[in-house]
Amino acid sequence: MPRDPRYDILFEPVPIGPVTAKNRFFQVPHCNGMGMSFPNAMIAMRRMKAEGGWAVICTEETDIHPSGDLSPLVEGRLWDDRDIPIFARMNEAVHDHGALAGIELVHTGHRDGCLYSREVPIAVGHVPVSTGYPVQARAMDRADIRNYRRWHRDAALRARRAGFDLIYLYSHAGSSLLGDFLSRKRNRRSDEYGGSLENRMRLLREVLEDTHEAVGDTCAVALRYVVDEGLSEDGAANMDESRAVIEALAEVPDLWDVNIREWRRDSMPSRFGPEGSQEEFIGFVKRLTTKPVVGVGRFTSPDTMVSQIRRGILDFIGAARPSIADPFLPKKIEEGRSDDIRECIGCNMCVTSDFTMVPMRCTQNPTIGEEWRKDWHPEIIPAKASDDRVLIVGAGPAGLECARSLGNRGYAVTLAEAREVLGGRVHDESRLAGLATWGRVRDYRVQQIQRMPNVETYLGSRLSAADILDYGFPRVVLATGASWRRDGIGRFHATAIPGLADIAVFTPEDIFAGAKIAGPVVVYDDDHYYMGGVLAEQLRLQGAEVTLVTPASDVSSWTAMTLEQTWIEERLYQLGVTVKEKHGLSAAGKGEVRIAHTGSGREQTLPCSSLVLVTMRLPNDALFHALEQALLADAGIMSLTRIGDCLAPSTIAAAVYSGHRFAREMDAPPRNDEVPFKRELITLE
Amino acid sequence: MPRDPRYDILFEPVPIGPVTAKNRFFQVPHCNGMGMSFPNAMIAMRRMKAEGGWAVICTEETDIHPSGDLSPLVEGRLWDDRDIPIFARMNEAVHDHGALAGIELVHTGHRDGCLYSREVPIAVGHVPVSTGYPVQARAMDRADIRNYRRWHRDAALRARRAGFDLIYLYSHAGSSLLGDFLSRKRNRRSDEYGGSLENRMRLLREVLEDTHEAVGDTCAVALRYVVDEGLSEDGAANMDESRAVIEALAEVPDLWDVNIREWRRDSMPSRFGPEGSQEEFIGFVKRLTTKPVVGVGRFTSPDTMVSQIRRGILDFIGAARPSIADPFLPKKIEEGRSDDIRECIGCNMCVTSDFTMVPMRCTQNPTIGEEWRKDWHPEIIPAKASDDRVLIVGAGPAGLECARSLGNRGYAVTLAEAREVLGGRVHDESRLAGLATWGRVRDYRVQQIQRMPNVETYLGSRLSAADILDYGFPRVVLATGASWRRDGIGRFHATAIPGLADIAVFTPEDIFAGAKIAGPVVVYDDDHYYMGGVLAEQLRLQGAEVTLVTPASDVSSWTAMTLEQTWIEERLYQLGVTVKEKHGLSAAGKGEVRIAHTGSGREQTLPCSSLVLVTMRLPNDALFHALEQALLADAGIMSLTRIGDCLAPSTIAAAVYSGHRFAREMDAPPRNDEVPFKRELITLE
Repeated sequence: MPRDPRYDILFEPVPIGPVTAKNRFFQVPHCNGMGMSFPNAMIAMRRMKAEGGWAVICTEETDIHPSGDLSPLVEGRLWDDRDIPIFARMNEAVHDHGALAGIELVHTGHRDGCLYSREVPIAVGHVPVSTGYPVQARAMDRADIRNYRRWHRDAALRARRAGFDLIYLYSHAGSSLLGDFLSRKRNRRSDEYGGSLENRMRLLREVLEDTHEAVGDTCAVALRYVVDEGLSEDGAANMDESRAVIEALAEVPDLWDVNIREWRRDSMPSRFGPEGSQEEFIGFVKRLTTKPVVGVGRFTSPDTMVSQIRRGILDFIGAARPSIADPFLPKKIEEGRSDDIRECIGCNMCVTSDFTMVPMRCTQNPTIGEEWRKDWHPEIIPAKASDDRVLIVGAGPAGLECARSLGNRGYAVTLAEAREVLGGRVHDESRLAGLATWGRVRDYRVQQIQRMPNVETYLGSRLSAADILDYGFPRVVLATGASWRRDGIGRFHATAIPGLADIAVFTPEDIFAGAKIAGPVVVYDDDHYYMGGVLAEQLRLQGAEVTLVTPASDVSSWTAMTLEQTWIEERLYQLGVTVKEKHGLSAAGKGEVRIAHTGSGREQTLPCSSLVLVTMRLPNDALFHALEQALLADAGIMSLTRIGDCLAPSTIAAAVYSGHRFAREMDAPPRNDEVPFKRELITLE
Repeated sequence: MPRDPRYDILFEPVPIGPVTAKNRFFQVPHCNGMGMSFPNAMIAMRRMKAEGGWAVICTEETDIHPSGDLSPLVEGRLWDDRDIPIFARMNEAVHDHGALAGIELVHTGHRDGCLYSREVPIAVGHVPVSTGYPVQARAMDRADIRNYRRWHRDAALRARRAGFDLIYLYSHAGSSLLGDFLSRKRNRRSDEYGGSLENRMRLLREVLEDTHEAVGDTCAVALRYVVDEGLSEDGAANMDESRAVIEALAEVPDLWDVNIREWRRDSMPSRFGPEGSQEEFIGFVKRLTTKPVVGVGRFTSPDTMVSQIRRGILDFIGAARPSIADPFLPKKIEEGRSDDIRECIGCNMCVTSDFTMVPMRCTQNPTIGEEWRKDWHPEIIPAKASDDRVLIVGAGPAGLECARSLGNRGYAVTLAEAREVLGGRVHDESRLAGLATWGRVRDYRVQQIQRMPNVETYLGSRLSAADILDYGFPRVVLATGASWRRDGIGRFHATAIPGLADIAVFTPEDIFAGAKIAGPVVVYDDDHYYMGGVLAEQLRLQGAEVTLVTPASDVSSWTAMTLEQTWIEERLYQLGVTVKEKHGLSAAGKGEVRIAHTGSGREQTLPCSSLVLVTMRLPNDALFHALEQALLADAGIMSLTRIGDCLAPSTIAAAVYSGHRFAREMDAPPRNDEVPFKRELITLE
């Protein structure tokens, strides 16, 4: 299809200093859990985005010196010439697709502890490192500042030799020396680098000039700047300062990459903020500079993008998460296939990789991180290798993705769903407070398979083992999901909670099904991801008195990985939910539960009319076991496979991956015990 | 010196199945933060221990299959033939020194989340993974059990091809499938692998037999077994079960490596248990088997070791931590130099590397992890390269180590200490409740330098800048330490706490100096390592009412890394200390402090006569700055260098490293901006 002319503006070339971007799609720097530890994977991931039409592809933050070593985080590293080959290889791949390559140079100051290099971290003042390691950074003296400027310049020169077209400076208080020097809250220096704004801005201005001088003739010099970071000494926001910096440096960088304070707001989870939520903060920047401006906002709608350009908010549509969920987003708009965009759901599963230090995962895009090691392409999948018809039982995230991918391969697929709605857990969970955007996991797949003549979908089709044997599909895939336990067993309790018979007990599925929950309610969360917190929120919004009890030290503790934890905690307190961390559930009784502190063992009794148990799930695998007993061969069934939660309950991302993997691997030659992917191996001396 | 004949027994060869250990010193498997991520470093570290006289050198836990992927932990990996070269290289190095090499094979079941491999974890039953990731393992069926046995056997065969002499099986509930199957608490299976002890033991017996059959003709088959792990269904200890397993399998493995339940007890911090603390648990094992038995107990005293052998507790002196603190411990005993042993202090800094995922550090041994990348040897240091005399000001851990290492190099060293005691912070801190063993950091170094005619030590010598200029030492090293802040500034508060003038405020140094502390006491801990918790303990032991307030979610939260956190928390509750986590300090006033919850913002007032602030430290660098202003050259001073806390406050381990590094690098050619160590780099495809 031809491109919608409304979107032409998105495909205009835009100059950035001495280089020119071919369109307005700009993959801003983002971490990915690969970096220097999984460089082959990182290169292939960046290459894929270039192939998908992004005009600019940037690295993750890249530390420039052992005194700013951010180990064990897995990011970029450019300490010396030994680090050039990785980036040179990445840039070759990016350039092959006509994109520009950018690198974000950073010295994180006191953020990280130099755990690997064992150097002493340096910072704007004496300050403990933020990561919690019992190490302090030392205040930089003039010689340190001179050294830092030289290292930054050397890094820019190395970056150019590696083939980069854009060299980023990074100003972010708490994450970079440049931002720390700017910050009135953090910079208490009495020399020419502290005090007045002019003084606090001195280092940033110097490094901008150094970089221009070193590489500015051939490379664009970009500045990533946090627009609302100005703080008064007491920590109160001070937008005048933030603005004054932009005014003072307006024409100095070749590009302004603007974002907002706190990572949890910058990568705003969809549960707590919509597409384009940064506009109110960054909207003023373009009025202060003639240089191009890039910003982010989880943009997935081309109309919103056009509006951002036309209204003079941005020159480039910056993206991290949307480019992960769909590396081919620009190409799809260009080819008039906007409907095919696999939109980011804002769950921040990708962000978790920065903490778990493994290659990035994505709920929507099961191929991210697999480009190199499994040779998976997000848009290309091998054609079918047989005419086997496939029955998929269950249209949750695993079943839908499996149907979509097998459909793409050309297989004849029958998708049978017991309920009258598609989506399984995604249907249920996306109706919870704040989670509507997660419904895109279902919507994208439903929309895709509806167009496939070779995929037939049946609602209200609860199949028995006998039905399945009768049908005689050669391939049967079970995606029947999982159910929450009703007995309290989970991470903390190995045996059932005593007394549950005396109290009204509910699981999340009961609540999805509309069970009447009378207060006072106790939500017991031994799952630690979102479910306990969101149910507490939901039930409180419905008017009940709610106490959230958890053995963890923080509510929804694992959501720290998705940048949601503090949002969730704040919301629960705002709503008046009572929170009891570090407590296990000792017993239930008529109208009450007894809880015990994990440290002191001290018990207390809470009034409780309804007890909601969020602990662990059990696979819905009765159908599997019934079929396992049957003589499948007699029914013409060649294979019976479980995917998703029905095999092992996990995240929605894992369910999608499971469905995709089955589809990829069907009819592939057996691999026996071979490890099914390529590995990144260290060179032995 | 000749060996003390009392210790001859430690040097007897001991057969283990088809192989023979040359003596009784046995480096048991231990993690090290290097493993597959820093293999060159790992190999050199293991090699060094072989050189130091250990008869057996084992790997860390090594996962055998992607379904037991323990990423992002940095351990060993033996998934396929691609992993053999690392181990082959290690074994060559170990064999060169006449030692045996062992490998600990493990499938961690549901402990880890397969974050890198993206396989579904398998376990004895359906269960969430322990690491907190929102993923569940699935119950193994018979085919899974067959597969697991085959993988284990294949791993043993690969290990033999890599040159290993001992092949370990690992039984540890919560950390290995074999232990989980054994555990009545975890194993709820109804097939022939569950129910009776015979059934639960089946898998262990099968894998033992499989391994014997596969490699037992040339390799010893060792079993690492947790002797007190038997639990009843309700989680209560059941020693009869643990014992019954040993009785049933007594002669099946070639070696029993026995330890105890919970890592925090197995690697008991010295603050909570003495040398040999496992004896009461493991003492019975040798009476049940004729096979050799190895166990650990942070053994550093040769007399204790001999007693363990003579009394029939152990056949091998197992060691992890003592072999890290002193890789040459066996050699030193053999050569009659037991006094030179650098004894482990039980601080568990080495353990932290398993969580921080960087090469292991050690408070006592600054060279560990540096063997390959910096070519540092724990016992050999290059001779001096000049006749420059060195003045070291301050005899804390940095100053003492610097004096010792410069002394070893042959430099003439003058060590001036302002106080009447040596050790600096180590002197003070080792007098706190439970920390006496930490005094070894001082004792070892004092004992070493006392023997060096070229090192002179002066107590009670508080030097001024003028004194130092007068003396005219060509090299001046300042190791003057740091002092705790008195204003509350630290990680949480960027500005001073209001109202401190109205209340009695104390720092840790005040308490070291014997300040009278009247209750009620509030200890405000924004440091999160041991100091806040140990002062609360100490003041409570002295009779005061104590409340510990911390913005962290757990008391002494960083000590989770050293396996001390739960011990500390339990002790504080036992003593009746009140704990307020997740609270900042809003203000102080006459007889009270106001604190505010970090999540809800809710304030409360605590009665307080004495406020102890444990937040951050400032370097004692007045002397440095006074000298910096002086014309050093006129006084013949060629270099002025800060080391340890005086440069940047950190751990004792960092101070020792800082002093050691200065001593290593003095008179070395300048390196300019070169990264001062070799790096481990991934092979690009």
